[in-house]
Amino acid sequence: MIRFESDYLEGALPEVMQALNETNLAQTPGYGEDEYCARAAAMIRERCAAPEAHVHFLVGGTQANLTVIAAALRPHQAAVAAVTGHIAAHETGSVEATGHKVITLESGDGKIRAAQVRELVEAHWADSTHEHQAQPALVYLSQPTENGTVYSLAELEEMSALCREKGLLLFVDGARMGAALVSTDVTLPDLARLTDVFYIGGTKLGALFGEAVVITNEGLNRDFRYIIKQRGGMFAKGRLLGVQFAALMTDGLYERTARREVELALRLRAAFEAKGWPLRYDSPTNQQFPIVPDGALAKLAEKYSFSEWGRVDPGHRAVRFCTSWATKSEDVDALRADIEKL
Amino acid sequence: MIRFESDYLEGALPEVMQALNETNLAQTPGYGEDEYCARAAAMIRERCAAPEAHVHFLVGGTQANLTVIAAALRPHQAAVAAVTGHIAAHETGSVEATGHKVITLESGDGKIRAAQVRELVEAHWADSTHEHQAQPALVYLSQPTENGTVYSLAELEEMSALCREKGLLLFVDGARMGAALVSTDVTLPDLARLTDVFYIGGTKLGALFGEAVVITNEGLNRDFRYIIKQRGGMFAKGRLLGVQFAALMTDGLYERTARREVELALRLRAAFEAKGWPLRYDSPTNQQFPIVPDGALAKLAEKYSFSEWGRVDPGHRAVRFCTSWATKSEDVDALRADIEKL
Amino acid sequence: MIRFESDYLEGALPEVMQALNETNLAQTPGYGEDEYCARAAAMIRERCAAPEAHVHFLVGGTQANLTVIAAALRPHQAAVAAVTGHIAAHETGSVEATGHKVITLESGDGKIRAAQVRELVEAHWADSTHEHQAQPALVYLSQPTENGTVYSLAELEEMSALCREKGLLLFVDGARMGAALVSTDVTLPDLARLTDVFYIGGTKLGALFGEAVVITNEGLNRDFRYIIKQRGGMFAKGRLLGVQFAALMTDGLYERTARREVELALRLRAAFEAKGWPLRYDSPTNQQFPIVPDGALAKLAEKYSFSEWGRVDPGHRAVRFCTSWATKSEDVDALRADIEKL
Amino acid sequence: MIRFESDYLEGALPEVMQALNETNLAQTPGYGEDEYCARAAAMIRERCAAPEAHVHFLVGGTQANLTVIAAALRPHQAAVAAVTGHIAAHETGSVEATGHKVITLESGDGKIRAAQVRELVEAHWADSTHEHQAQPALVYLSQPTENGTVYSLAELEEMSALCREKGLLLFVDGARMGAALVSTDVTLPDLARLTDVFYIGGTKLGALFGEAVVITNEGLNRDFRYIIKQRGGMFAKGRLLGVQFAALMTDGLYERTARREVELALRLRAAFEAKGWPLRYDSPTNQQFPIVPDGALAKLAEKYSFSEWGRVDPGHRAVRFCTSWATKSEDVDALRADIEKL
Repeated sequence: MIRFESDYLEGALPEVMQALNETNLAQTPGYGEDEYCARAAAMIRERCAAPEAHVHFLVGGTQANLTVIAAALRPHQAAVAAVTGHIAAHETGSVEATGHKVITLESGDGKIRAAQVRELVEAHWADSTHEHQAQPALVYLSQPTENGTVYSLAELEEMSALCREKGLLLFVDGARMGAALVSTDVTLPDLARLTDVFYIGGTKLGALFGEAVVITNEGLNRDFRYIIKQRGGMFAKGRLLGVQFAALMTDGLYERTARREVELALRLRAAFEAKGWPLRYDSPTNQQFPIVPDGALAKLAEKYSFSEWGRVDPGHRAVRFCTSWATKSEDVDALRADIEKL
Repeated sequence: MIRFESDYLEGALPEVMQALNETNLAQTPGYGEDEYCARAAAMIRERCAAPEAHVHFLVGGTQANLTVIAAALRPHQAAVAAVTGHIAAHETGSVEATGHKVITLESGDGKIRAAQVRELVEAHWADSTHEHQAQPALVYLSQPTENGTVYSLAELEEMSALCREKGLLLFVDGARMGAALVSTDVTLPDLARLTDVFYIGGTKLGALFGEAVVITNEGLNRDFRYIIKQRGGMFAKGRLLGVQFAALMTDGLYERTARREVELALRLRAAFEAKGWPLRYDSPTNQQFPIVPDGALAKLAEKYSFSEWGRVDPGHRAVRFCTSWATKSEDVDALRADIEKL
Repeated sequence: MIRFESDYLEGALPEVMQALNETNLAQTPGYGEDEYCARAAAMIRERCAAPEAHVHFLVGGTQANLTVIAAALRPHQAAVAAVTGHIAAHETGSVEATGHKVITLESGDGKIRAAQVRELVEAHWADSTHEHQAQPALVYLSQPTENGTVYSLAELEEMSALCREKGLLLFVDGARMGAALVSTDVTLPDLARLTDVFYIGGTKLGALFGEAVVITNEGLNRDFRYIIKQRGGMFAKGRLLGVQFAALMTDGLYERTARREVELALRLRAAFEAKGWPLRYDSPTNQQFPIVPDGALAKLAEKYSFSEWGRVDPGHRAVRFCTSWATKSEDVDALRADIEKL
Repeated sequence: MIRFESDYLEGALPEVMQALNETNLAQTPGYGEDEYCARAAAMIRERCAAPEAHVHFLVGGTQANLTVIAAALRPHQAAVAAVTGHIAAHETGSVEATGHKVITLESGDGKIRAAQVRELVEAHWADSTHEHQAQPALVYLSQPTENGTVYSLAELEEMSALCREKGLLLFVDGARMGAALVSTDVTLPDLARLTDVFYIGGTKLGALFGEAVVITNEGLNRDFRYIIKQRGGMFAKGRLLGVQFAALMTDGLYERTARREVELALRLRAAFEAKGWPLRYDSPTNQQFPIVPDGALAKLAEKYSFSEWGRVDPGHRAVRFCTSWATKSEDVDALRADIEKL
């Protein structure tokens, strides 16, 4: 079985494993207060052109999402997300478990637009019974989205301006940030400048695990480590996160790896298009979503794994193929050839 | 600086690192549904003589504690713990953040007694206003305790019998379980037989991270994976936990490592006693708590690190020295020699 | 100003005030453990033909909703409601504040259908990643709905059968239950037989305040009074609730009052229809929702109060007129005459 | 049976009932946005000499406590209370259910001292692992305490100064505020000046129900009505609270009633002392706690009700006798006579 079902099927990049092996016997304080974390944080601040930013390393995405949102909101405040946003759809109500409603906005492609948020917020405040409704207070975006689509710089700037106008926080989930960095005009300095908090995903880009949360809003950062600890995210051997992110941030490894996985994905996309299979979403990133006839899918499933993404019509289903840092070029070639032969 | 301040200063045992390196490129499904986790769970079930037990792998101790307790209790129910219990004293109110009170019982040594729990529970139900109080519903023990002390099999059996008599759940935090296994008459099969849920700590015994939660109570296990996900503990590359625990459970590595670290700790203890330094707690495990004159401490602090455990009198403080899988025998010898020379 | 904006504009029915005045100096134990509550509960059990049912008196609707749902669900479980359901739309995220997601279903008229719930639940369990989603576990209906519409007995039976088939709890919010009892074929015994829990609203039908929660599911009732206390709903002078509900349940006062308010509302409805104003919802109850030209509304607003229910098109808005136990027949006549003259 | 077991055995003062009866048919907007609430709030602001203060009316004490604390704290922050404080001992973990730990301080008489809070707070911040502990952020006092004791102005000023020095909020639970106002040198203007938020209890002083929450801290007041709604405390017919508090604040009714109930209580106290029964607490308020021989208690219990307050030794128990607005002078005389005769 050649696996394309997700981008977290393997361990970590050789450079990351090597760094872990080399530092294995070093003695450091726990809980992220070590020199490796300090160094990785400094590298990230530099890459973000945000010398004042605070960087916290967490183990996973759901943990990062719930910790940031719990830290950011008062009890009556809600996060606003696309109906397909990870916090709305795939985290078992983890935000609600911290006490907060997730207000969902319709989305065809996984993105939400500033105009939608504006309408929601203005309707809230215009309603004389607004105290009877959860108050929209934070916008959650995924870059790229769960459907592989991306926000452009212009879109992100518009959303950021709206949030500042309306007093909302802007939070970007970057579980697959690498893939967005190499396929959009949005850079890390843009994210640092335009959001209150975002994270750079390691789990889905070559680390064993880890998300680097970058906070530029001082108020939000206040006592943030208490919240990490309270939510179970204070990693005892925190230095493992610092070691991994330092490796990823060295010599452009993070972007180089992203670029390679995206190139492989685009080769798959070209094969789907050549075959005449429509794409469910227009994704420039490492996730591709062809709509495939059932018969062809059954054939492919004998040799390849992929994820279900919903039935489109009685004869076709959308599926997801992912590439990752570990995807082999020859496996992509094999799949392309098999598609062509179908 | 030679470090004795905690038992999570280094990475992982060579056998664990080797297993991670060897399996790094294997492709597996995520979220703990892989063959490595399945194998490690089977090994643990066998070691626990509990073929029906459910095993879940979590990343850390606070996460394990809050996930188990959130899964176990209805909203009005409380956990009962020693005032020094980790959930009461060192987890930033993580249990309260899931909505539950932690009722604390006094403890001189870190342990609580069945008689204390009996008195609490009987007083609760005897009080005509008991509905105005949180209902004690789960007993939380640490084995060994945060002070290095341990429950004997007789004590654990008494607590278990009481819990069953009164309808309380019994939960044992085994973050340092290895040290208890080699210094008490309580075995893994005893824990599986006498508790509803306990865990076997990896983070503090030779793994990079990880706690193996063993649930023998079927009702508690129902939908447990939803709760793991909701609390941010569903690890994407879950197989990393399976790989590590499989290594720890192979050829007695876990107990062998525990035995060595405890032997080193007892050599330190002997040095403290030879020097006439009283022990704050009577610990047979890898944490030792001498009460040391301030002058001697200042001298030691030039060369060794340790943890503060509170002032005892104007001239003395209690401190903690920990050994771990990575502690070097020669470092223990050096410390012993330096103590003798003081 | 003649007020039709809601059905909680005045105090209480004369019979209710009289009962409160007459019992004012009686001495009783607190917290609902008095003879008045016992008597009112017995009357309700009898009216529900449910001799085993448990009756709890709470002060208000939001409190009743959040208390029942907090008592009913485990942390990963969700309530299912119409997108217009009170818990979804007008309670400031109170259910989320107890940790639970509210999954919303589309609704044109305020009702949800068994087929919608079936589809949701079956999709949940069919999804291999269901543990990553909140688990639908309780269906919340309002009878009548927030839009004045009602479930028929056939509809309620179908929903109940589905819930039992799928293992979901069925909870009916009866804040305006009286209006439903006199305009549908659903009786109190039907509700007791078909749901796990429902309530009979007093606040909106002639009491100063109060909702009588009827629980027929033994497991749900377990320790329910703890949850009431924990959520701030344990009323010190609980007998005030018993006194009021006993008055409402005496000599058919509750239904008689409901019948009168509904008749007045239907007279308003007839006037709207005669005028050619379409009705936003087909309500047989005490809330009526005409779609009115802006000019006519402005005219009416000089003399009458009503609630906004949203713009329908550039020239028309939907509004809500409510009648209550205190609505005067001559006020209804005056409004009818003024509408005719417009 | 003549009842002294609590101060919420009866309905409301005649003046309060009269006001409710007289306003019964008035039509007002709901949710506390009516003229009665506005007027009562203005009267309270004037009595507090706090023209900028915000006044919110809630139905009960537990609701007031949990709403204020939920509004005040970030997730990792804790309330500090006496171990006997109502939120710690008699509210079924309602504060924990909003996610916050209650840190308890030892107390012999129900009061806590500024020095205790100082020690706690300074120890927290001095501990290098403070992020692993809930952060003390709000001090909760009861005036009078659950044991009838009271804070003097000097004590309250010292606590207030400490809270401001350390950045903690100060919250005073005034469920029995009237009894404190007439037995200490602490006035309502003092409370408004020295605390961030406190409340004036109606339930236990002549109202059917209701607590008037006075907030002088602008930040805490922000969006407070959302929190009230979310926690189920937004009373539909909110004007009932305004009507009652306006009556209590008219012509000194509140203090006059308090003075009378305290005088009756002190007459009971004199009888206990004359009999040689020690007092468990030195209470100048309407709750008195004699320590009574078992035989005498059994005799009294034939004719009088009172509350258990714990066994003191094998032959004696502490009990509580309460007076209230409704206590009859002749009942107090009868009890005094019966005690004398014992």
